[in-house]
Amino acid sequence: MEALVLSSGGLDSTVCLALAVEKYGPANVLSLSISYGQKHDKELLASANVAAFYGVKHLSLDLGEIFKDSQSSLIQGASEEIPEEAYAEQLKTTAGAPVSTYVPFRNGLFLSSAAALAQSHGCKVVYYGAHADDAAGNAYPDTSVAFHQAMAESIYLGTGKDLTIVAPFIAKTKADVVAEGIRLGVPFALTWSCYNGREKACGVCGTCRDRLAAFQKNGIQDPIEYETLVP
Amino acid sequence: MEALVLSSGGLDSTVCLALAVEKYGPANVLSLSISYGQKHDKELLASANVAAFYGVKHLSLDLGEIFKDSQSSLIQGASEEIPEEAYAEQLKTTAGAPVSTYVPFRNGLFLSSAAALAQSHGCKVVYYGAHADDAAGNAYPDTSVAFHQAMAESIYLGTGKDLTIVAPFIAKTKADVVAEGIRLGVPFALTWSCYNGREKACGVCGTCRDRLAAFQKNGIQDPIEYETLVP
Repeated sequence: MEALVLSSGGLDSTVCLALAVEKYGPANVLSLSISYGQKHDKELLASANVAAFYGVKHLSLDLGEIFKDSQSSLIQGASEEIPEEAYAEQLKTTAGAPVSTYVPFRNGLFLSSAAALAQSHGCKVVYYGAHADDAAGNAYPDTSVAFHQAMAESIYLGTGKDLTIVAPFIAKTKADVVAEGIRLGVPFALTWSCYNGREKACGVCGTCRDRLAAFQKNGIQDPIEYETLVP
Repeated sequence: MEALVLSSGGLDSTVCLALAVEKYGPANVLSLSISYGQKHDKELLASANVAAFYGVKHLSLDLGEIFKDSQSSLIQGASEEIPEEAYAEQLKTTAGAPVSTYVPFRNGLFLSSAAALAQSHGCKVVYYGAHADDAAGNAYPDTSVAFHQAMAESIYLGTGKDLTIVAPFIAKTKADVVAEGIRLGVPFALTWSCYNGREKACGVCGTCRDRLAAFQKNGIQDPIEYETLVP
């Protein structure tokens, strides 16, 4: 195996997977999805469907045990509801703290798990779909460029300079990611981004709003169905 | 909760736990042991016994799934035997690669898991027993000072500057750690360091050799029993 792709079943990591398959071929790419005790499994199913579409080997891990006492609104049993405002609105009330959908050090744990698994399988690179819009406004501290750089350095050094983190979209916007996905013929209809796990995507959580805007900027329609389309 | 201590059941992390309990009191300290699919569970039992001795809440995680395809000689099902030479001898034959008991990015994964769990429980610090001898000779890339600094930075940034890694022995030798343990009255007899899981510690694996030497430098006898004592 050459490359492991952290695949959430969402749009960004699916475009990442397409890039890795383009470069290394499906036989040399591993896809990894991680359950963290979230309220629904739609993104995990999407990740498996995307892996099947590309013909890559798919692995899944369950790390829900680690987060079961967290207060994140994404976690099963959380008392807080998932917000329906855009991130910019949510951040007006957090007084500098992360938004309620922040899951404690989730991206650090995901990257570390991916690194340990990737090196165990002989891979040399881990692909990861972080992009510049993720870091905007500091809604999620584990998406900042500074965090990403420190984590990539940790993994490079900690694996004896054997494994490199590749984040092809770290300086790009989500609209750029959609554009790259269009070029690669990514099956957007198989992906799932919404924080809610209902039949259709809600259209109003932070991640739905960002996704819809990214398609709109590319002048094309998102092929998945939404409950609500905010004008 | 104030502090989470990564506790392997070994000597270094037990002295770390004693330091955390001295500073925060047992009611504010969490102990965490992590199974990684190693060949025996003696260190996990030791960790639980140490937590009981100090009266702190003990958590355990099983991350064995991540390493099951690794080639590390510490992992269940590994074809390679655990070496019986000192690390300096082992490193003569690895051509710059880690020793066979290296487990892919294990310490990075352990620190990330500890961080995610600690922040989920409201802790502000994670204690971790890395010391300067660990990094000597580069037997384990995930024990170097540079790795540790990058990882501590990743965790500080990725948690929104909420959580700090404390490695009180990072500039100290294992003999210094034993000296600190003597000062704190650490129950060394409850700890387990040996890579083999037999009734008595083997006395000849790299970690037994290092432990015995650390006690010898302090002029006291290690209270645990050994199969073999190399003169």
